[in-house]
Amino acid sequence: MSHIDLPDAPGFFGLMQRFPKTAQPLTQLAESLLRGSSPLSPGERELIAAHVSAQNGCQFCEGTHGATARHLFAGNPNRDSETVARVLEEGPNATDVGDKLAALLRLATETEAGGEAVTDEIVEEARAAGAGDETIHDTVLIAAAFGMFNRYIDGLGAPVPSDLEVYDEHGAFLAENGYQQPSA
Amino acid sequence: MSHIDLPDAPGFFGLMQRFPKTAQPLTQLAESLLRGSSPLSPGERELIAAHVSAQNGCQFCEGTHGATARHLFAGNPNRDSETVARVLEEGPNATDVGDKLAALLRLATETEAGGEAVTDEIVEEARAAGAGDETIHDTVLIAAAFGMFNRYIDGLGAPVPSDLEVYDEHGAFLAENGYQQPSA
Repeated sequence: MSHIDLPDAPGFFGLMQRFPKTAQPLTQLAESLLRGSSPLSPGERELIAAHVSAQNGCQFCEGTHGATARHLFAGNPNRDSETVARVLEEGPNATDVGDKLAALLRLATETEAGGEAVTDEIVEEARAAGAGDETIHDTVLIAAAFGMFNRYIDGLGAPVPSDLEVYDEHGAFLAENGYQQPSA
Repeated sequence: MSHIDLPDAPGFFGLMQRFPKTAQPLTQLAESLLRGSSPLSPGERELIAAHVSAQNGCQFCEGTHGATARHLFAGNPNRDSETVARVLEEGPNATDVGDKLAALLRLATETEAGGEAVTDEIVEEARAAGAGDETIHDTVLIAAAFGMFNRYIDGLGAPVPSDLEVYDEHGAFLAENGYQQPSA
């Protein structure tokens, strides 16, 4: 049961409906982080978001952003649903995802552990694998932001669908349309 | 030293200058959370933000939002710089801040500990002290968002001023002007 009265809509969707005052900046942040300009592809960014959410045990965000990554990777010769499954199960130790993505997943894990956990060594590992300043910035901010979304959704006990098809539908929609709310 | 190349400006300010793409939604979120409509006063909301930042060891955010709360409490018969000092030192166990604020500080602490840490009991304690759904929502989201700002700033190793006067100046400015960026 949710900790506050929410409409019958899963996870973030119910919170958006009940609290439009904060839904708008949160949605704009998601759009900027996951679809705005970045050296990382939208699929890679969704995967970092899903990874942090999996580590935080936020089933709604893991399900939604994992499914979105799968849809965005369709037709990509180097990434597919197996990549997503491996990252969500094994985290930064996932094999065969490439040194750069593995280093960024590690950077995201340490960001969630707390800003002070991000050491020079972790950042150097990402640089050695080809990440520049903007990639490092975007990874840290995506990890930090999904720590927020995870705590917001689970801290208020928003309802979480168990049906995997619900996530697949959300993922297909978000892969196609992104996060921007239609202007009022 | 910061983990990426940043202009010579403290904490969030340098990140805003270098990455305007994400500065805008982050600034709008701060304005909405800390100055938008809420049953909590701007000063109380700044204090919750400062409390979470203090617990996370984010000196920049603790300094900035603690100073902003002090400026906003000027002239308030029930809250003053002593309230801020007690909350930043003692957290949810701060004496003489009132049952409701103490319960909200506890709710914020548990939100930062992770969404699942927010139990029915913690929420019921806040309700018993007079908090309604919107107050509970706003507290959880402020705590979650400052977990993000803390990790963003410290995860990138943004420079942190040690001069307390810098924070007092930021706090006076933010108490007067809020967070909204001037439109382009």
